[in-house]
Amino acid sequence: MPLISTDIQQQISDRIEEEFSKLDLPKNPHSLYDPVCYTLSLGGKRIRPYFTLSACGICGGSIKEAVPAAIAIELLHNFTLLHDDIMDSASTRRGKPSVFKKWDASTAILSGDAMYAWAFGQLQYYGKSEQFSKEQYCSILDIFLDSAKTVCEGQASDLEFEDETTVSLDDYLNMIHGKTAALITGAFMMGGTASGASADKIERLKSIGKHVGIGFQIQDDLLDVVADPEKFGKTLGGDILEGKKTYLSILSLKQAGPDNRDRLEHIFNNENLSANDVNEVIDIYRQLGIIEKAKETIKDHYSTAINQIKCFSSNPFKEDLIEFLTNLKNREY
Amino acid sequence: MPLISTDIQQQISDRIEEEFSKLDLPKNPHSLYDPVCYTLSLGGKRIRPYFTLSACGICGGSIKEAVPAAIAIELLHNFTLLHDDIMDSASTRRGKPSVFKKWDASTAILSGDAMYAWAFGQLQYYGKSEQFSKEQYCSILDIFLDSAKTVCEGQASDLEFEDETTVSLDDYLNMIHGKTAALITGAFMMGGTASGASADKIERLKSIGKHVGIGFQIQDDLLDVVADPEKFGKTLGGDILEGKKTYLSILSLKQAGPDNRDRLEHIFNNENLSANDVNEVIDIYRQLGIIEKAKETIKDHYSTAINQIKCFSSNPFKEDLIEFLTNLKNREY
Repeated sequence: MPLISTDIQQQISDRIEEEFSKLDLPKNPHSLYDPVCYTLSLGGKRIRPYFTLSACGICGGSIKEAVPAAIAIELLHNFTLLHDDIMDSASTRRGKPSVFKKWDASTAILSGDAMYAWAFGQLQYYGKSEQFSKEQYCSILDIFLDSAKTVCEGQASDLEFEDETTVSLDDYLNMIHGKTAALITGAFMMGGTASGASADKIERLKSIGKHVGIGFQIQDDLLDVVADPEKFGKTLGGDILEGKKTYLSILSLKQAGPDNRDRLEHIFNNENLSANDVNEVIDIYRQLGIIEKAKETIKDHYSTAINQIKCFSSNPFKEDLIEFLTNLKNREY
Repeated sequence: MPLISTDIQQQISDRIEEEFSKLDLPKNPHSLYDPVCYTLSLGGKRIRPYFTLSACGICGGSIKEAVPAAIAIELLHNFTLLHDDIMDSASTRRGKPSVFKKWDASTAILSGDAMYAWAFGQLQYYGKSEQFSKEQYCSILDIFLDSAKTVCEGQASDLEFEDETTVSLDDYLNMIHGKTAALITGAFMMGGTASGASADKIERLKSIGKHVGIGFQIQDDLLDVVADPEKFGKTLGGDILEGKKTYLSILSLKQAGPDNRDRLEHIFNNENLSANDVNEVIDIYRQLGIIEKAKETIKDHYSTAINQIKCFSSNPFKEDLIEFLTNLKNREY
């Protein structure tokens, strides 16, 4: 199921890659900028910049005005990946060596920091263009800053959860609201703001972003145990092996009877897990109906987002975004 | 020689600390914000926020309008220290355990990232206050972003230099222009911009910041070999032990005869140095007149800065800044 299935999506994708190639990063110091170029060359789904341009389009704006915001949010996303890979000691990213592995931790820290500044720098377009008022420029920066802070908070909570034995579903949802939904919400809201949309439309985009973000993260949690590892690009059961709290692990502990709960707790608290342990956890998930429940929750979040998109006036971007989210809902990687 | 020697300096210092206490950082996630509060509680010379307020004052502005910029630049400075301590495996900062040591690398990375966003967030004051035009707001962000990028470039060059056998004086000066002068220059320029100063005054402040920054860094290089370790808070000869390129090491290699050059190269290329090796290097610096030459260069940079300050119209901040820089020139830590 390719994520690009329409002409609009192809045009947006081409535009985003073209903009990245025009970023005009300095050559030196090469230890700073080579890893930035390398990271951007690894590609990725680029869903966040698509959401920014699409949100601008469904609000009736000219999508070219949302391009700097789209590039900014994708740079911010890539900055978080550079730093997350150090914290997770991740040796691969998108099937290639991570910057942390290919270079070292210092290089990944510093290149990430530079990418952060370049991300903010994109938004100076709104400060210099006469088409945008000071209020719009300030609003775009407010949204961006809020996303940047919230994503740090989400990642910190995720790391804290690794050391906690029990995490409530509410705390978990709050954490993924930061770790994953913050940037997606920011992507939608900045696109709307760049179009000059009204405050109530921006609020609707915020809610759409939140539901897409939460659905997307629970999908990541689910794919960790059901995906084809080749397509997903990660080890099956990687979250279980790393002791990560996920939607599935939290729900299973909540719904299990005493025997299953004991087994799950025993495995989740063990640091040296075998493939058999991982398979046993997945079997318990299946027995308890956790896989089906996760699929249902994902579907609910995407459906809520799609229903809110339907409230916008008809235009080509609206139908395109609905199709995109329908494909994203069925993603296998 | 205390850095605070006047009423103006005391008032500015009190104001800065008061603003830090009012930052209103969230409590949770505690692993994210505890290290930020800890870092800010360690104090420091706070020279950058002083420069921002002072620059605003000498341009005739109301210094309260420069407070958010002053806080932003000090937060940015502290963010760089959090990340630098990981890269340098530094276990202490300002005589206390570094965040990297007290917590761990992940905590220092993420708390630094959060501090970065909080730094930018301060500048939203200029976006929301009616006293500032869109152009002023955008200019302040331009200066800040340029400082943030340049400091990353300087730090990357500094790390690259550790693996190079020879570094030219020009390359070294270019590196410290980034690593140290960028934030000091940004501090002066943002203060001027917040006062509404003309472009030529801002250019003068830029030049002042550059000279102060370069003088300040060469002083750090010098203090590494001549300071009282108790006052300086670092091991004497720490840069020599860590294989850092400094103004003194580069100049000594340039000016040494064949015998001294062989000894210096031998020691600089050796990873396991004894206290005797460090003392031998310092002796060679003395023999070659490198200590005196460094003192002269520091004096020249501060004098150039002070002469440029003298071109501003008379006001209390002008005299105060000259006194501050005179004390800074003679600092022992």
